Amino acid sequence: MNKSKMWKLGVLILIPLIIFLIPPPEGLPVLAWRLFGLYLTAIVGLVLKPYSEPVILLGSVAASAVTIGNTAVPKEQAIKMGQVLSGYQSGTTWLVFAAFTLSAAFVTTGLGKRIAYYLIGKMGSTTLGLGYVTVFLDLLIAPATPSNTARAGGIVFPIINSVASALGSDPVTSPRKAGHYLMINVYMVTKTTSYMFLTAMAPNALALSMMAPILKIDLSWGQWALAAAVPGLICLLLTPLVIYFCYPPELKKVNNKEISAKGLQELGPMKKSEKMLAVLFIMALGGWIFSKQLGMDASTVALCVMATALIINVVTWDDVLKNKGGWNTLIWYGGIIGLSSTLTKAGFFAWLAETLQANLNFGDHNTLALLSILLLSVAIRYLFASGGAYVAAMVPVFATVGSVAGANPMLLALGLLFSNAYGGAMTHYGGAAAPIIFGAGYNDTKTWWIVGAIIGFGSLIIHCTVGIAWWELLMSMGLIGK
Amino acid sequence: MNKSKMWKLGVLILIPLIIFLIPPPEGLPVLAWRLFGLYLTAIVGLVLKPYSEPVILLGSVAASAVTIGNTAVPKEQAIKMGQVLSGYQSGTTWLVFAAFTLSAAFVTTGLGKRIAYYLIGKMGSTTLGLGYVTVFLDLLIAPATPSNTARAGGIVFPIINSVASALGSDPVTSPRKAGHYLMINVYMVTKTTSYMFLTAMAPNALALSMMAPILKIDLSWGQWALAAAVPGLICLLLTPLVIYFCYPPELKKVNNKEISAKGLQELGPMKKSEKMLAVLFIMALGGWIFSKQLGMDASTVALCVMATALIINVVTWDDVLKNKGGWNTLIWYGGIIGLSSTLTKAGFFAWLAETLQANLNFGDHNTLALLSILLLSVAIRYLFASGGAYVAAMVPVFATVGSVAGANPMLLALGLLFSNAYGGAMTHYGGAAAPIIFGAGYNDTKTWWIVGAIIGFGSLIIHCTVGIAWWELLMSMGLIGK
Repeated sequence: MNKSKMWKLGVLILIPLIIFLIPPPEGLPVLAWRLFGLYLTAIVGLVLKPYSEPVILLGSVAASAVTIGNTAVPKEQAIKMGQVLSGYQSGTTWLVFAAFTLSAAFVTTGLGKRIAYYLIGKMGSTTLGLGYVTVFLDLLIAPATPSNTARAGGIVFPIINSVASALGSDPVTSPRKAGHYLMINVYMVTKTTSYMFLTAMAPNALALSMMAPILKIDLSWGQWALAAAVPGLICLLLTPLVIYFCYPPELKKVNNKEISAKGLQELGPMKKSEKMLAVLFIMALGGWIFSKQLGMDASTVALCVMATALIINVVTWDDVLKNKGGWNTLIWYGGIIGLSSTLTKAGFFAWLAETLQANLNFGDHNTLALLSILLLSVAIRYLFASGGAYVAAMVPVFATVGSVAGANPMLLALGLLFSNAYGGAMTHYGGAAAPIIFGAGYNDTKTWWIVGAIIGFGSLIIHCTVGIAWWELLMSMGLIGK
Repeated sequence: MNKSKMWKLGVLILIPLIIFLIPPPEGLPVLAWRLFGLYLTAIVGLVLKPYSEPVILLGSVAASAVTIGNTAVPKEQAIKMGQVLSGYQSGTTWLVFAAFTLSAAFVTTGLGKRIAYYLIGKMGSTTLGLGYVTVFLDLLIAPATPSNTARAGGIVFPIINSVASALGSDPVTSPRKAGHYLMINVYMVTKTTSYMFLTAMAPNALALSMMAPILKIDLSWGQWALAAAVPGLICLLLTPLVIYFCYPPELKKVNNKEISAKGLQELGPMKKSEKMLAVLFIMALGGWIFSKQLGMDASTVALCVMATALIINVVTWDDVLKNKGGWNTLIWYGGIIGLSSTLTKAGFFAWLAETLQANLNFGDHNTLALLSILLLSVAIRYLFASGGAYVAAMVPVFATVGSVAGANPMLLALGLLFSNAYGGAMTHYGGAAAPIIFGAGYNDTKTWWIVGAIIGFGSLIIHCTVGIAWWELLMSMGLIGK
């Protein structure tokens, strides 16, 4: 164990130790206080990362179970030890895990590549056109690829990277020829598509499941997509254009027919597994849109799609076993959801809301509170290298503060759910795909952060204006709950 | 997809289809009937194995969720869709998963090997002595190695196999010199140690969790070990001797000092990771024995041990990710436990018990019923290639029938929990380690089945006599529940 790891581990041991020694604030049950200490440890662990996420969570889950078993509480405050494992029964965890399998299938079958080369042939005759190829490609597969690493990192990036290279743009000698523009566009686009569907980014479902009990809201897969559609499409249409004007690529024209033909030729005729995946993908979309009519929820749809994919051999169980991202997410999402639900059961968030209510006074400035929280939610993303860690740390707090401040719960929920994705645009470490794309070497930190700030805060402005107007319209039409 | 797979898949589709079309038997709610159809499909799938276990279970879980969402039931019979995922919150699932990590650590750190060579040097001067080396080695690590594949297949087998080879016993030309005896002894021993601890074989915890709600019994880790100790130690002492008399190895004397010295030399001085594993192992044992005093349950102890192992780097998270057996078990145990608890909630087992009660009459022959069920539980193992599949299929039935017949619930539970392990001794496919050991080529089916029958039915006799007497003594002393 090296020094930096030791130091981080020390911090993680000190946090609960100190909290255990301090008596709980007035009104907070002692068990809730101690569990909060362990939750805080988990979040700090996710940020410091002395170990990978699953290890941090397994440690916190185990420690929470021991704490529950060893804290004397009045009978009415008792919690079962098994509560800390409840995240592993959560539909959210399984929705993400199951959809990860589909994400992987787009890479392994080659269907993602095929769509990419097809789109390049159709609309990639200019570098700006290639920017929109990225938009369509990413948007098309986003509904079933909650793994950003698989979608942007595994499908879109390799293709656009090889196109940049084919265009004679070299990361060292000629990045500005085309690669600089194309690469940063890949990331900014994926940070927008990521909030357009519940299943387009893993932390989406996590954020919804943490927010729902605090704000008492409910949002189906279809309602999510509907609410995100207007601000999302506006941002998607603007993104390639805005970046194009900020940093125009030197090369304007592209011999796209040749690139497309060569790529498709290499792939050969469409394989049976690609066709079956396409059918499954359409079934998944249909299932998510019409889940109510089908007597299913989004998680059941995802489970059915995963099981079908395995049964008809679009993916094998061995593919699933090798898909480390899926297992990591299963363990750490299940862990944090379990901890958060245990904390809720122990009365922590109820106490937090009461305490804030007693000490904060927003007066009649509900809208100002809403906008301030959304601004803060974006700005704070400069500090987080992972959407999941941000969600675990900040979403319950923002939701509680906002609800105490009297912000409309549904507007607050939608604003936070979406800012979670575009807030990650601002840095070259803001999401799992960022280091992959940045690592190609076409981009420098300075221009990345400038473009990121424009896209991040630009999206915030669009969401706070057009977005809120659209969501209020949907609420007034009764299409989403208030 | 080949023909045999198609045929098996056809059967698995037909079973629920037929059951869905037939109206439920009198008194059984329609939802319970349909869920039973899917449970039956899962069990038949586990036996036919057109896919690996996790795929079978994911399919059944998804289908059960859809069935719950689409079966109209009176309000009081309603079940939540998420109930089918409840197995993933179950402590049983996590106990097994966490302990799998320790199992793997015995292999990766080399500690298992070191203990083996040490024991060979101390007591392996004859082939019979080597038989007892196997007993001590396997028994020593059994409490923390629920993976039979890791313990017998990954630690004991490779060492004893290399010893057989070093003794000049070749699988083809001279199996009877030593290998024939040593190899079959490895398997028979592990089938005995497997029932001596709750954590010595994965299906143990599964069987207990399925049996507990039906028989209304409770058994701690310590109570399990206590109940198994007397019959288990008798069987362990007899096993190497009995096989020795049945098929005496041609070679009697062994130059064990040389083998041991060479093996230990190759391992070098004891590594830090081995020492830490040894400490962790002792802590795990202590935790399981004194779990009540520590305010923990067996699953929490296992989780703590796993988290500690990861934090102090005895195993890395990457080791865990690569440990496919652990993930397979997590998915399929969690699945079958969820299905079984859903079936219980739907009222299936209550209905089954009532129906049996109305139609069967055992009169006063409670003991005869107990003995008949135990005999049946061993004999039926000829049909099952997996302890887990046997547990899922037969344990709920045997427990229900036995309880209706008036057998003492605790005697029935202990009898069935233990016969689950030694029942697997009888065939060369009866447990996960069997094909590995049989595959070494020293043994033939005929002699394996003869020895297997002697050990299997011999254990049954010991359990039905000494075992029952011991358990009754423990009950009368109040050390285990009634």
